[in-house]
Amino acid sequence: VNYARYLSRAAGTMQESPIRKMGTVTARIPDLISFAPGYPAPDTFPWDDFREITGELLGAREGTTLQYGPTRGFRPLLDAIRAVLRGRGIDAALEDLLITTGSQQGLDLVARVLLDPGDVALVELPAYTGAIAAFRNVQAELRGVRQEPDGIDVDDLDRVITRVRAEGKRARFLYLVSNFQNPTGLLLAGDKRRRLLEAADRHDILLVEDDPYGDLYFPDAAEASDTRPIKADDHEGRVLYLSSFSKTLAPGYRIAWIAAPPELTAKFEVAKQAADICTGALDQRVVWQAIERGVLAAQGPRLRAVYQHKRTVMERALRQHLSDLLTWPDPRGGFFIWVTAPPEIHTDTLLERAIRHQVIFVVGSAFFVDRTGANTLRLSFSAPTPERIEEGVRRLSEALREELDHLHQEVGPVGAGGGTRGTGTPRG
Amino acid sequence: VNYARYLSRAAGTMQESPIRKMGTVTARIPDLISFAPGYPAPDTFPWDDFREITGELLGAREGTTLQYGPTRGFRPLLDAIRAVLRGRGIDAALEDLLITTGSQQGLDLVARVLLDPGDVALVELPAYTGAIAAFRNVQAELRGVRQEPDGIDVDDLDRVITRVRAEGKRARFLYLVSNFQNPTGLLLAGDKRRRLLEAADRHDILLVEDDPYGDLYFPDAAEASDTRPIKADDHEGRVLYLSSFSKTLAPGYRIAWIAAPPELTAKFEVAKQAADICTGALDQRVVWQAIERGVLAAQGPRLRAVYQHKRTVMERALRQHLSDLLTWPDPRGGFFIWVTAPPEIHTDTLLERAIRHQVIFVVGSAFFVDRTGANTLRLSFSAPTPERIEEGVRRLSEALREELDHLHQEVGPVGAGGGTRGTGTPRG
Repeated sequence: VNYARYLSRAAGTMQESPIRKMGTVTARIPDLISFAPGYPAPDTFPWDDFREITGELLGAREGTTLQYGPTRGFRPLLDAIRAVLRGRGIDAALEDLLITTGSQQGLDLVARVLLDPGDVALVELPAYTGAIAAFRNVQAELRGVRQEPDGIDVDDLDRVITRVRAEGKRARFLYLVSNFQNPTGLLLAGDKRRRLLEAADRHDILLVEDDPYGDLYFPDAAEASDTRPIKADDHEGRVLYLSSFSKTLAPGYRIAWIAAPPELTAKFEVAKQAADICTGALDQRVVWQAIERGVLAAQGPRLRAVYQHKRTVMERALRQHLSDLLTWPDPRGGFFIWVTAPPEIHTDTLLERAIRHQVIFVVGSAFFVDRTGANTLRLSFSAPTPERIEEGVRRLSEALREELDHLHQEVGPVGAGGGTRGTGTPRG
Repeated sequence: VNYARYLSRAAGTMQESPIRKMGTVTARIPDLISFAPGYPAPDTFPWDDFREITGELLGAREGTTLQYGPTRGFRPLLDAIRAVLRGRGIDAALEDLLITTGSQQGLDLVARVLLDPGDVALVELPAYTGAIAAFRNVQAELRGVRQEPDGIDVDDLDRVITRVRAEGKRARFLYLVSNFQNPTGLLLAGDKRRRLLEAADRHDILLVEDDPYGDLYFPDAAEASDTRPIKADDHEGRVLYLSSFSKTLAPGYRIAWIAAPPELTAKFEVAKQAADICTGALDQRVVWQAIERGVLAAQGPRLRAVYQHKRTVMERALRQHLSDLLTWPDPRGGFFIWVTAPPEIHTDTLLERAIRHQVIFVVGSAFFVDRTGANTLRLSFSAPTPERIEEGVRRLSEALREELDHLHQEVGPVGAGGGTRGTGTPRG
């Protein structure tokens, strides 16, 4: 059987996630230090609380705890999420909300409900690969908008939208991570949030605001008010807001949500019915109880301290070992440091060498929809211990210096050859 | 904002699940007896085993237990599933397997990887609504194949495929539930399984075999060998096999799997990366341990006895209250009795009356892709207790008799009117 003949056009172009691909490497290489996936630190998971909560839930033998549940989500969890959102300045009605099986499902539902093949979705340069994949899998066309040190360049957004319109196409939405962006770690400035709402209105597009990291600001560099979601000031109903408990409680519970205009949420719900019927009933109840019992609230300060410290350790190591070669914006929260290497470096080649040095990262080009970023890379400091972060940066430094030596050796003979050509030695 | 303008073509045609819709009714009506969703009986869930297993897993504080995991699935669970499949006569390699977030996700992945808009998928008449929705959501065209008392009519399959080809289209696959079909409860005969494999080869189509109920045969009417999956004799690689732990352990853990030719499984994996990254890590470990510790094996005989008894209770009640009005094939396993009412009954109208009598079912027309089945309905006996089953059938009988009275009253005057017309009373 020739299976290629059976594939849909979408399947024909689907590409493996560059982050997921690193998982195979991790499994293969002993003593590997991974700066690749944006995994939260498992020692921050509230294990004992989870054990207690789960024991009580299963002990109660309440049938619905392990049954199929409503596609919208478990009502008490939805109510608890409304309270979480109020804490972020967002006044969401019950009908705005849908529980999703991780935020990745939210992105997939957004793609399927809002994009036809050939439709244009706008994303940041660089943008989160999971969003890129979800939008590409419905055969949308992606256009990138530049970022500045304080987040997306709103003037460039205007230009890109105008260009798209000139081609006779319509940009449906701008997808962005407003707080501690994936992959750059950038925090979108407050005035830009307002300008984005105006731009969305002016251009008649929607904003898909993905906010998994908002709670994880670093107290030495930002405060809660800096992370106020765009959605909080969305009076026109243009913002679809996605968030998750994967970074604040644990990703093993696949619990996230969308808050969107109710007309759209209703469509997301119908799409979810055919995607996985419902999100796990027990997982939803565990998260609900973690909120009710104050576990989530207690995680905030703890996680901010842990990740701020890891960032400090990684930045210190980078300055110590690599400040002559790499540049990066200081992250004010989140999981990532976004690194630019010298222009002659191709980070996909560097990655192969890094693997030999038992350290990995995600190549920056994976995050760019315009095929740029060849000399960039994303380092995630969230999962490894401080000791492993230091050791990993040391290994990265070795790999990078070796790669540069190798390039200069290569350039040497080529340069000499060029010199030979330059001298105009006659052929015959 | 006019959100309708933002919807994709797919979203524009997405329809709410008729089964899920009943959930809203259930929540609204007090003392309702629901024969609507195919929910397993929660008192059969191995609560104590789950509590013990989960306590140990969380107590061990092993980071990966609550972390993101490989998209393919947790390796020890994949190995355990291989053993489960061997017990069903299927020799699956590791590379054939993908864990899915419930079988509904498997259907969704099948749809996205194998169907383009306008492609033809073949389904049974009647067919599982979740499959219909998944295939329709990628804008496929669905064609129905008739069923006989021993399952799908292979001659009709030939005719339908020939007709599709004559239209210049190609049928990609036949989707079917081989064991105790949803919604009819029918068991596909052994010789038809062989003939289907031949037909798939002859017509160059794939078979999507969905088998959630195979373990739930009724010992008084069938035996394990009757449920041998088509996949077990698939030497050409034409069968994509889906199964689940939702009916044998609990649906609250969203754990199911696909076993398919590795070229296709690889594509399903990439599609799943963008759909939800991975299935819940803890859920996968709980199911793995439930298999390892013999919990799953112990469930089999217990569940067969429980559901056989509930079937007996429902059939007895139907015979007692409704044998003059309804017909149904005796199910030999599974969760459902498929009922045909007198031809003048429209079960969507009957449902409204049934709700007033505090009993619900799923209207049969929802399962037909050819707009037939107006006088059919699906009764699920799996979740209610025997007492509630008896009471529910009694209520259904009241509702049906009331509906028939109502129809005859309507028909009465109309009949009289007709008679008047018949007598040819002159107008003037």
